Order: sequence, then C-alpha cells, then structure tokens
Amino acid sequence: MKIVIALGGNAILQKGEKQTYSTLIKNIRKTCKKIISILKNNQVVISHGNGPEIGFLAIQNEIAKYKVPAMPLDVLGAESQALIGYIFEEQLRNTLREHKINNAVATLITQVLVNKQDKAFKNPTKPIGPFYTKKQSLALKKKGFKVIWDAGRGYRRVVPSPLPIKILEVEVIKNLISKGIIVIAAGGGGIPVYLEKNELHGVEAVIDKDFASQCLANSIKAQLLLILTGVDYVYLNYLKKNQKAIKKMNLKQAKQYMKEGHFLEGSMKPKIQAAINFLSKGGKKVIITNPEKVMKALNNKAGTLIIK
Amino acid sequence: MKIVIALGGNAILQKGEKQTYSTLIKNIRKTCKKIISILKNNQVVISHGNGPEIGFLAIQNEIAKYKVPAMPLDVLGAESQALIGYIFEEQLRNTLREHKINNAVATLITQVLVNKQDKAFKNPTKPIGPFYTKKQSLALKKKGFKVIWDAGRGYRRVVPSPLPIKILEVEVIKNLISKGIIVIAAGGGGIPVYLEKNELHGVEAVIDKDFASQCLANSIKAQLLLILTGVDYVYLNYLKKNQKAIKKMNLKQAKQYMKEGHFLEGSMKPKIQAAINFLSKGGKKVIITNPEKVMKALNNKAGTLIIK
Repeated sequence: MKIVIALGGNAILQKGEKQTYSTLIKNIRKTCKKIISILKNNQVVISHGNGPEIGFLAIQNEIAKYKVPAMPLDVLGAESQALIGYIFEEQLRNTLREHKINNAVATLITQVLVNKQDKAFKNPTKPIGPFYTKKQSLALKKKGFKVIWDAGRGYRRVVPSPLPIKILEVEVIKNLISKGIIVIAAGGGGIPVYLEKNELHGVEAVIDKDFASQCLANSIKAQLLLILTGVDYVYLNYLKKNQKAIKKMNLKQAKQYMKEGHFLEGSMKPKIQAAINFLSKGGKKVIITNPEKVMKALNNKAGTLIIK
Repeated sequence: MKIVIALGGNAILQKGEKQTYSTLIKNIRKTCKKIISILKNNQVVISHGNGPEIGFLAIQNEIAKYKVPAMPLDVLGAESQALIGYIFEEQLRNTLREHKINNAVATLITQVLVNKQDKAFKNPTKPIGPFYTKKQSLALKKKGFKVIWDAGRGYRRVVPSPLPIKILEVEVIKNLISKGIIVIAAGGGGIPVYLEKNELHGVEAVIDKDFASQCLANSIKAQLLLILTGVDYVYLNYLKKNQKAIKKMNLKQAKQYMKEGHFLEGSMKPKIQAAINFLSKGGKKVIITNPEKVMKALNNKAGTLIIK
C-alpha cells in the first residue's frame, strides 16, 4: 500500500523541550520505533513538521545578522528539512537495521509550488521566529514585515501560509518508492516557491505541513494518509466536559463537524481539512492518531478513521 | 555517460564575496548555465563544496548559543547541503526550462561513512568557523577542542578530515540517475557518520569534497570525474615564473608530480589525489578545469585531462 505518514512536531520535539542534538536524536529514534512495522511491506513517504526548528533557525539568523547576512525563510525552511531529515534518516537506518529490514532511505530537499496570487500573501497569519520589543517591531514594520502582538510574550513576525499546488519532486518520489526506497520529503510543508515569467523564485512563507502532505499523498496516489499528532483520536467538543472521541467518520460527517466548529484553528482544523481534500481527490482512507497508537489504529483498534 | 561533477566553492561564492541570498542565487545560476549542456544526454551527479557556508552556520550557532543550543558540525554540514542544494536545484530547474531540457532534479541529504579509527581523528587539521580571542581559545581547549593560531587572523577551531568509505545513499543515487534524474548529492563532502555497535552516529568532522566525489564516482561506476575549480589547468610549478599548464597526464605522471610536490596542500593536492584514486579504482577519465572552460575541456580543447 502507498502511505504518506505526516508526523506532527511533537514526534520531533515535545512542547517545552530544549532543542538539543541529543533530545532530537532520542525523540526521533522513539518515533522511528513506533512506525517501523509500517515501513516493511508498504511504499512510504514520511513528512514532518518544523515549527520549533525553523523558529530557532530564524532566531540564530536574527542574532548573528551583524556578522553573517540573515537568510530568508525559504532557505531556513530548507535548512530545517536537513536538520530533521538527516537525523531522521540516520535513526531510521539504525531502527531498520535493528529490525532486519533492508529498505534504503532517501531524504529529499523538497520545494512546493504556491501561487503568488494566493490570498495568504495579502494576509500573513503564521507567527514565526523570535519575539521582539515594541521598538524592534516598529523597525520591522518599516521594512514591510507584518508584526503582531503575541499575547503577553512580545511582538512577533507573521508570515503568509499559502496553499500548496504541486510538490516539485513528485516524479522523483514516485520513482523512489516504487523501488521500495523509504522517502523523507516535504518537511515543514516544503520550501515555498512560485513561478513568475517561467522562473521559480523562493518566497518568505510557510506551507501548512498537513496540506503539503495531503497534496503529496494525492499526487502519488497514496491509498492512506496517516496523520500522527499529539492526540489519540479526533474529538468532538475537544477539552470540554462532553468531549467525545470519533472512531470513524465519513467525508460528509467530517464536513458537517467542520461547519459546527469542533476543530481548533492551526491544530486539528487543518488536519481535518487535509483529510477532506485527500478523500475528495481520490484518496481512500485517512487515519488520525498519535505515534503511540499507530499500530493499533492500522488494525482499526484505535485512532480516528476517515473514509469517503 | 555517467559523470560526477565536483564543483569547487567558487562556483557558489567567490573569495571575499558576502554570503547574501542574492549573491548565492546569482553565482549558482551562472554555474548552472555553464554546465547545462552536459546535463542533457548524460547521467549526472553534482557535488559541491561548502567551506564558507558551514563556516557561517558555525558562526551563527556560536553567536546565538545563549538563546538556541548550538548544533554539532554534522548537523551544520546537513544544513549547508540544504542551503546550497535548495538554491542549486531551483536555479537548475530554471536553467533547464530555459534550455528546454526536461530532466527532473533531486537534492539528497547525503551521509558518508567514515572510520572512527581514521588517524584524522587523532590529528584534526581542518580550520572551521569563527575566529576566537586567546581567552576564548583556552576555554575551547578545556572543552577538548583543538584550536590553532590562524596566521594573524585569530584562533580557530580545527576539526578532523577523515577519508570517506561509503556514500550511504549510493543505491538511491544509482536508481535516480538511471532514470535520467539529475542528482545533487554529497554536498560539502557529505555528513560524516561512523558505525559503532551496529549503530550510525554523526561525528564532528568535515570530509574533503574531492575525496567524497571520487568515492561517489567510483561507487556508481562513473566514467568521468569532472572537477571544476578556480583554475583552467593543473599547473606544474604553480604561481612560479616557470609555471606550466598540464594538458594531459597519465596516472603514473600524476603520481610522479605529486611526489615532486607540485600541488598545493588543501587546494590542488587533494584533487590530484582524488583523480589518482578514481583512476586506480576503475574510473576512465578525470578532467580538472574551471567552469568557464568546461565545455571546451570536454572537447579536449582546454583543461587538464588525466587518464589511466
């Protein structure tokens, strides 16, 4: 079966954890162990979030900019793919060897086409990087950046989050998985690029990782989109007294629950939207659960199953 | 024909140039234009240096470390592969489109196996990253780092430069080029990893880019190793009054000139050694020239040709 596994940020760094080398290795190894059985007899692409990592890279670039010219967000997106992808590939190789599985692994720097006319560019909403003082925020605004007040913590730059149109490396990915090679791709939603006068340009934006994973899953005609996140189930009335785990829903129900506002913005909502998109465009099955329950979920014994 | 093109650092950033986004794009685009005709009817892997780039990443990590834990050199090596690889792939796509060439492109985060017993680990020689004051250098020494006095410019950390044993992604690369996909790989000589108790570990070291390119070229059974650097020819008595361009030499002559000390340490010497290794292990042809003369060199009208 062709599967895209979309790993949430917590598969790499837990909330509040310091981003050290050893913590990244420990967490990623743990995640590898949980998904290892899926990798043996399927064609798998693994994508992952990069929220904290690209933020830290932005902070490093900002602090050191008097000495080293700061790179724009598209480059930092690429760097975050390498930071996570390298450690992931290494630990996956170790875990595969441990389980006597012989598949090769490839980590691809992945570019994702977006539309320069996407309305997200007129309305940046995604906070990223360091916190600034009021004075610094004014200087940033003068440079044309959009800055918001992030509840109590300081001023913060917000960037556009356009929709993914096409994974540029999709033919490469198809090729590799058809040979049984496990591919790590579209990390952090991919590096956003747009086409203008027949030329590709990078752009300072961040693509939602779940949307990019869905776009990828549809392009390679995956049967299953497996979204691994911090919760075991999708919930109705999440965190309220009457919260209720959804074990199974169809496309129509998913759309209805979306309308009723059950899912949190920037959290479960994009995941459900990605699921809806995937199923509407020919996908067969979406499972949303946490890495702990993924094997159970594949046997219909845990997690939320979403079908057409 | 199967070709590995090993690009020197000056194909990405000229000496003295500031590493800005626009400079990287401009230089890399220029390099792409020079090699574009080679890409059409051959199976090509492109590797590249990362000297200035990994240095800048090290400086960013050092300066920002009170805020963001600094990552070790293996991670910075990965990040430099992404920084350069992303822009290279993008500009290569633009150049390919301009020339109506349809080959796909893939950038691989590449790990290279080294031996933990390599004598380089006992004798680090490769200067990297920021310059330090004497006081800072003493603190680094206490932490177990080796620091040298870099003529007049300050103290500098030196790291081991072990020999490459195996490109971990070699099967992936073979697969891709056999389908006509242009591969960017082994950037900066690859990320050094070693095997201990059946587990891969990253290690703080830097692999010579020419040796890694040669190792890769032999593993994929390339016919040609094309080393593009800052000079049009390999010279005898380089920069002396009696300097003389070498148009052609065989393996035996190359070894002889090496013995006679014609080639500069850390500059032409590793290139000639890489050429000797490549030809000794089954390679057919090495060409050393600059990007300007590469097309002429392929027609035997410029550059230094080295054959068995």
